[in-house]
Amino acid sequence: MRTGQTHLFIPGPTNVPEAVRQAMNVPQQDMRASDFGSLTLGLFSDLKRVFKTATGEVMLFPGSGTSAWEAAITNTLNPGDKVLMARYGQFSTLWVKMAEMLGLEPIVVDLPWGASAPVGEFERILGRDVHDEIKAVFVTHNETATGVVSDVAAVRRALDSTFHDALLFVDGVSSIGSMDFRMDDWGVDLAVTGSQKGMMMPAGLGILGVSQKALEASKTATMRRAYYDFADMRAFNADGYFPYTPPTPLLHGLRASLDRIFAEGLEAVFARHARLAEGIRRGVKAWGLELVAEHHSYCSNTVSAIRVPEGVDACEVLRIAYDDLNASFGSGLGRLNGKVFRIGHLGDFNEGMALTALSLAELSLMRAGAAVVPGSGVGAAQAWFAGDIEYRQPFAVAAE
Amino acid sequence: MRTGQTHLFIPGPTNVPEAVRQAMNVPQQDMRASDFGSLTLGLFSDLKRVFKTATGEVMLFPGSGTSAWEAAITNTLNPGDKVLMARYGQFSTLWVKMAEMLGLEPIVVDLPWGASAPVGEFERILGRDVHDEIKAVFVTHNETATGVVSDVAAVRRALDSTFHDALLFVDGVSSIGSMDFRMDDWGVDLAVTGSQKGMMMPAGLGILGVSQKALEASKTATMRRAYYDFADMRAFNADGYFPYTPPTPLLHGLRASLDRIFAEGLEAVFARHARLAEGIRRGVKAWGLELVAEHHSYCSNTVSAIRVPEGVDACEVLRIAYDDLNASFGSGLGRLNGKVFRIGHLGDFNEGMALTALSLAELSLMRAGAAVVPGSGVGAAQAWFAGDIEYRQPFAVAAE
Amino acid sequence: MRTGQTHLFIPGPTNVPEAVRQAMNVPQQDMRASDFGSLTLGLFSDLKRVFKTATGEVMLFPGSGTSAWEAAITNTLNPGDKVLMARYGQFSTLWVKMAEMLGLEPIVVDLPWGASAPVGEFERILGRDVHDEIKAVFVTHNETATGVVSDVAAVRRALDSTFHDALLFVDGVSSIGSMDFRMDDWGVDLAVTGSQKGMMMPAGLGILGVSQKALEASKTATMRRAYYDFADMRAFNADGYFPYTPPTPLLHGLRASLDRIFAEGLEAVFARHARLAEGIRRGVKAWGLELVAEHHSYCSNTVSAIRVPEGVDACEVLRIAYDDLNASFGSGLGRLNGKVFRIGHLGDFNEGMALTALSLAELSLMRAGAAVVPGSGVGAAQAWFAGDIEYRQPFAVAAE
Amino acid sequence: MRTGQTHLFIPGPTNVPEAVRQAMNVPQQDMRASDFGSLTLGLFSDLKRVFKTATGEVMLFPGSGTSAWEAAITNTLNPGDKVLMARYGQFSTLWVKMAEMLGLEPIVVDLPWGASAPVGEFERILGRDVHDEIKAVFVTHNETATGVVSDVAAVRRALDSTFHDALLFVDGVSSIGSMDFRMDDWGVDLAVTGSQKGMMMPAGLGILGVSQKALEASKTATMRRAYYDFADMRAFNADGYFPYTPPTPLLHGLRASLDRIFAEGLEAVFARHARLAEGIRRGVKAWGLELVAEHHSYCSNTVSAIRVPEGVDACEVLRIAYDDLNASFGSGLGRLNGKVFRIGHLGDFNEGMALTALSLAELSLMRAGAAVVPGSGVGAAQAWFAGDIEYRQPFAVAAE
Repeated sequence: MRTGQTHLFIPGPTNVPEAVRQAMNVPQQDMRASDFGSLTLGLFSDLKRVFKTATGEVMLFPGSGTSAWEAAITNTLNPGDKVLMARYGQFSTLWVKMAEMLGLEPIVVDLPWGASAPVGEFERILGRDVHDEIKAVFVTHNETATGVVSDVAAVRRALDSTFHDALLFVDGVSSIGSMDFRMDDWGVDLAVTGSQKGMMMPAGLGILGVSQKALEASKTATMRRAYYDFADMRAFNADGYFPYTPPTPLLHGLRASLDRIFAEGLEAVFARHARLAEGIRRGVKAWGLELVAEHHSYCSNTVSAIRVPEGVDACEVLRIAYDDLNASFGSGLGRLNGKVFRIGHLGDFNEGMALTALSLAELSLMRAGAAVVPGSGVGAAQAWFAGDIEYRQPFAVAAE
Repeated sequence: MRTGQTHLFIPGPTNVPEAVRQAMNVPQQDMRASDFGSLTLGLFSDLKRVFKTATGEVMLFPGSGTSAWEAAITNTLNPGDKVLMARYGQFSTLWVKMAEMLGLEPIVVDLPWGASAPVGEFERILGRDVHDEIKAVFVTHNETATGVVSDVAAVRRALDSTFHDALLFVDGVSSIGSMDFRMDDWGVDLAVTGSQKGMMMPAGLGILGVSQKALEASKTATMRRAYYDFADMRAFNADGYFPYTPPTPLLHGLRASLDRIFAEGLEAVFARHARLAEGIRRGVKAWGLELVAEHHSYCSNTVSAIRVPEGVDACEVLRIAYDDLNASFGSGLGRLNGKVFRIGHLGDFNEGMALTALSLAELSLMRAGAAVVPGSGVGAAQAWFAGDIEYRQPFAVAAE
Repeated sequence: MRTGQTHLFIPGPTNVPEAVRQAMNVPQQDMRASDFGSLTLGLFSDLKRVFKTATGEVMLFPGSGTSAWEAAITNTLNPGDKVLMARYGQFSTLWVKMAEMLGLEPIVVDLPWGASAPVGEFERILGRDVHDEIKAVFVTHNETATGVVSDVAAVRRALDSTFHDALLFVDGVSSIGSMDFRMDDWGVDLAVTGSQKGMMMPAGLGILGVSQKALEASKTATMRRAYYDFADMRAFNADGYFPYTPPTPLLHGLRASLDRIFAEGLEAVFARHARLAEGIRRGVKAWGLELVAEHHSYCSNTVSAIRVPEGVDACEVLRIAYDDLNASFGSGLGRLNGKVFRIGHLGDFNEGMALTALSLAELSLMRAGAAVVPGSGVGAAQAWFAGDIEYRQPFAVAAE
Repeated sequence: MRTGQTHLFIPGPTNVPEAVRQAMNVPQQDMRASDFGSLTLGLFSDLKRVFKTATGEVMLFPGSGTSAWEAAITNTLNPGDKVLMARYGQFSTLWVKMAEMLGLEPIVVDLPWGASAPVGEFERILGRDVHDEIKAVFVTHNETATGVVSDVAAVRRALDSTFHDALLFVDGVSSIGSMDFRMDDWGVDLAVTGSQKGMMMPAGLGILGVSQKALEASKTATMRRAYYDFADMRAFNADGYFPYTPPTPLLHGLRASLDRIFAEGLEAVFARHARLAEGIRRGVKAWGLELVAEHHSYCSNTVSAIRVPEGVDACEVLRIAYDDLNASFGSGLGRLNGKVFRIGHLGDFNEGMALTALSLAELSLMRAGAAVVPGSGVGAAQAWFAGDIEYRQPFAVAAE
């Protein structure tokens, strides 16, 4: 029998703060009541602050981030449209698959898993596309499978420098709300996240930022859609309602989640994620292990994908953690299966959780036969955490 | 300030039983964990019992019933397919709209709101369709907007007697789980419901029954879909997983909900709904008011749509209930707005709730100026409830 | 199997508002943490507003109202002290029993159950007690067993007019927070309530108001006590702590409960109780039944004790309600058993709940063989509720 | 603002398992309902299994462990009775204070804090008490303030070898349910615990085991009591009821808690506590710090009291943990204040929680200026945990 707290360190669903959990524990209510809009209109405007868009809109779709991907595509593109994409992890790969299933013609740049978005290659391809045949560029901001961040602003610059008019789609599923995301500054037209990541809730809501340019495109786009249709959604959303029954507990949870984010401060949330992620990375280094991210500048502040040593089976590490230690880490997805495990460190995360994650990963690695020094990863993170926060007295242990 | 219990009598979301509410109040978990499938596989098999299908499959889509409608259509039909539909209420009307948006060509039979599915007319049209151009027939089993039940078995007989091969789509959103539904017996190919009705949960899951014939059709159907693709879903579902992050709290709630249904007994659930609905209808009759349902044999056991008297505004009745009495009734949808209010009596409902609904509707009607006799509706329902259950001594008050 | 909402109409525990329920659903916490006092100090000061005392103090004892009774006695009286008490219901009777068990010598005035505190008789006895041998007078403000209110202010006047110095103990278990209670104005020295009544929480906290005079008495009182010792409690309470581990979820619930009371307004809470109680009483009258309260001016606004007709067994009414209708009413306590059932209408109560209580009691009475006219009680209450609140158009149905 | 999980490592209240938390989140109910006893009678019989008594009884008092102490004393002893006690920590000291306040005459053996119950000294005193003037011997089984276990069986042997008839009172507040406790085998007459320790619930219930001998004593004992009176309690308990309104949510929580304990197995629960406690102790040793417990054989498996190094303020360690790291450790109580901090490792505890506790204590010590080697304590515990559980391949890291 499992005893004690279940330790959850997957990169989503993330740990739900108590205030959010309380807020979701509500009886059902009439989603057509006269005062229902006062709840939802506040959510829309606060989500715009999280997406950093003043001119765009944010929509909430029952579903997951994937459903918001589909809504983004079917509302703004046309069958057979050429779109520019890159594959450098499981989720960017799945996005290409979806584009194909929905009838687009992706031009795909394939990269090693661990790479980030190929800005230079994108720029070359866009530059050659003199007839603007490419209708959209897709960027996975934070590849959850590899723990790699891409430079969305640079992709925007590539579009601008080639005077290209394509829409910019960004998968921010595991970044938005935990890492800086600037929809307006970066000229993002469609930005996707899900409720179960930085928004610290259960899965169930796909969250989609839509620029004015994308809204304009939706008026003539001819891909078939109904449930996800922007026009229907916007007509109802204008007064705070939905074209179908929304999952109201999640809306109350989202209210609590946004309150929490703004109480801490959006930039403070990002800084916390950076500080905690650095602790995790120092721990990994102290184990003598490598991250999947090809370069330290690509390392995600929300998830770290860690290569296990030769001779050790990452699946066994995960099995030990789950079966023996009541702990869940992220598995290696797709081609990384068996070679990698992942630590999610996003959402409602703190030092103690980072140290717990490292100590349990360390113990699981030990039990799986990896030659890690007991306490090494935790100690490295502690040293970082001890020094990081301004503290009154000189601290003897060097932070690595 | 609102005080006391909030009284919810809309036809969905329905009141969530405490056991279901408890079950949903869980921390997040790893939806890829080795034992996750043991939860979901049990849900699939028990849902089949609720749909009464031995040969079909049941799928769970994050979303609402509407999302399951869309999944049903896009997975089994082809662009431009002719489909036979009828409009006799708001939801059957919306279904036609969706069919059009998704590129089908509906043949629509328009009926007064309050009518049920036009079996005879369907049979005539199907009989004339000698080249089997009609690919699907759509039936709204329980029109939530009008409180009208349709005879799905009769539509099946119409298909059979005309030797027609069209798929049979049924909207069972507000019937399945509360009224008898026989997917196999009635030869239903696609049956839709949502979590927030008879399943007694919050909105967030579209539930779709799919026959083998529909599964076969999905293999060649050419409508574009990705998120809702049957093939992807089935590949993951086979082991109890999902192609994307599912809303796990709802899955736990569904477990508790199904346990509750089977503990009471599926047929006992239906009998209870019939008994309670009759109480509501006797109350309405005692007020001297009319139901929207054209004929008493059409009356739904899950929702009653009630016409207010001339000179009374149904919106005012609803406003009084909501603002002054902390009670929500269903509004008159579409063309019934202002003329009708609805009492939802489905899901986790009992005598006390039926009497509360009647007493609050009665009071709201009184305050809105309707000449109803105080206590009349409640009294009529009490008389029915007093007599209905076998009880030891003769009961003096005649039931009506 | 029980289905649908459980209908709770006992005079405590009362129905817990959702906001209070949410607030109590918290993880455990350190009751010695540096910021713990900020929670509790606010509770103490807000409870003083509810008790209407500026000069007294309020203490929270883990336990029930009965534990606060004991704390009141053991901290302020001495073994063998004479105390003046009256028995006019189950709880006033139990209080005499406690006084005896704890070694006091009660002078007891026995009255019919249904009477209120014998102010005149008390005054006579106090007037004759020229040597001030009587150390305390005990009054049950609201006798929960009979639904009778007593006039505490008049007892104070009796003490004052006889120049008597006895302490005034008041059992306000089922009044405080729902009916007006004025600790300072009425010169009450020890006032008791519990968390599960007007404070709208589960049982678990005894709440005790203590005047300066009582605090002074506690310094020399020689009855043995430890757990409930005022001195220990006050030493810790001064900074917001407790001498032992307090039930922290209840403290959070109490915070939400007090917030709710003040948001509605204390006087508005009392007015609501008066309005709803009148509805209940009109319903009872329409049934042709009698209240236990001897005079209409004694009728409690928080609980109504109703005599069933000759030939009907009140226990059977309760059994039918509970077993067949998922509803709990209060039983007839002590000598009223089998003759009386009670409706609790205190705490988080509204019109809909009052009508539900009446309609279920009505149905239970009918089934138990009572000749009540179906709908009669509900109708009488509706008429009252329809007329009570200012409403735009003349209302045809006479209130009674 | 506090972010992330709150880390609770005090020796009570302990972390509440999710199943218990769910079980407590219930609406209120009628504590006099006909089926209420079926809940409580099962609790009583299962608690007897936890106390390991076949012949005794277990009672539940609203309150904390301290209230059960008082109930034990006032029901079985007489004013002025001599009782044999020892002081070796804060709680044994408070027990002496209570005995004095309640009018007993304690014979007190004072010992250094860190010592365990003075069996030899007790035996000498009992041997000299030829007239059986000592009516009771009090033993604190697990001194929560010092993390010291005492040998209750040896005290029983001392009573038996001196043919002494005194009652044996045992404070098992922080042992029962987490460490082996044998009420019958050890001849314990009154055994006390609280809901917020090994029973893994919030505070609010004092739990008292009572032997037949103690029950017999209660029939003639003359100390005054009312609320805690055994006779009243037993009269109601016989059918599963209480003499006053019990805190029903806690009763439901207790049901879930007991189910959990027996699902794991009582002996397995003890073994888990032993394994985890050893991990904590190895961590402390690796830091180079000392436990308060004078001898390793006294070390508690539920709480460890750790002396901070010279020059470090334990209060500062606690402050850093609480303010900066969202973590609560136990403070040094009484004379240990500032010199000691405590880690509670009882109840629903697992390896991950032990490692979290060590890593956060380690980090707090570092920040407070203690010269602990980062990762040292965690590493030592990991080594122990890696080796402890049978595991397939030889493990290179020696367990210390």
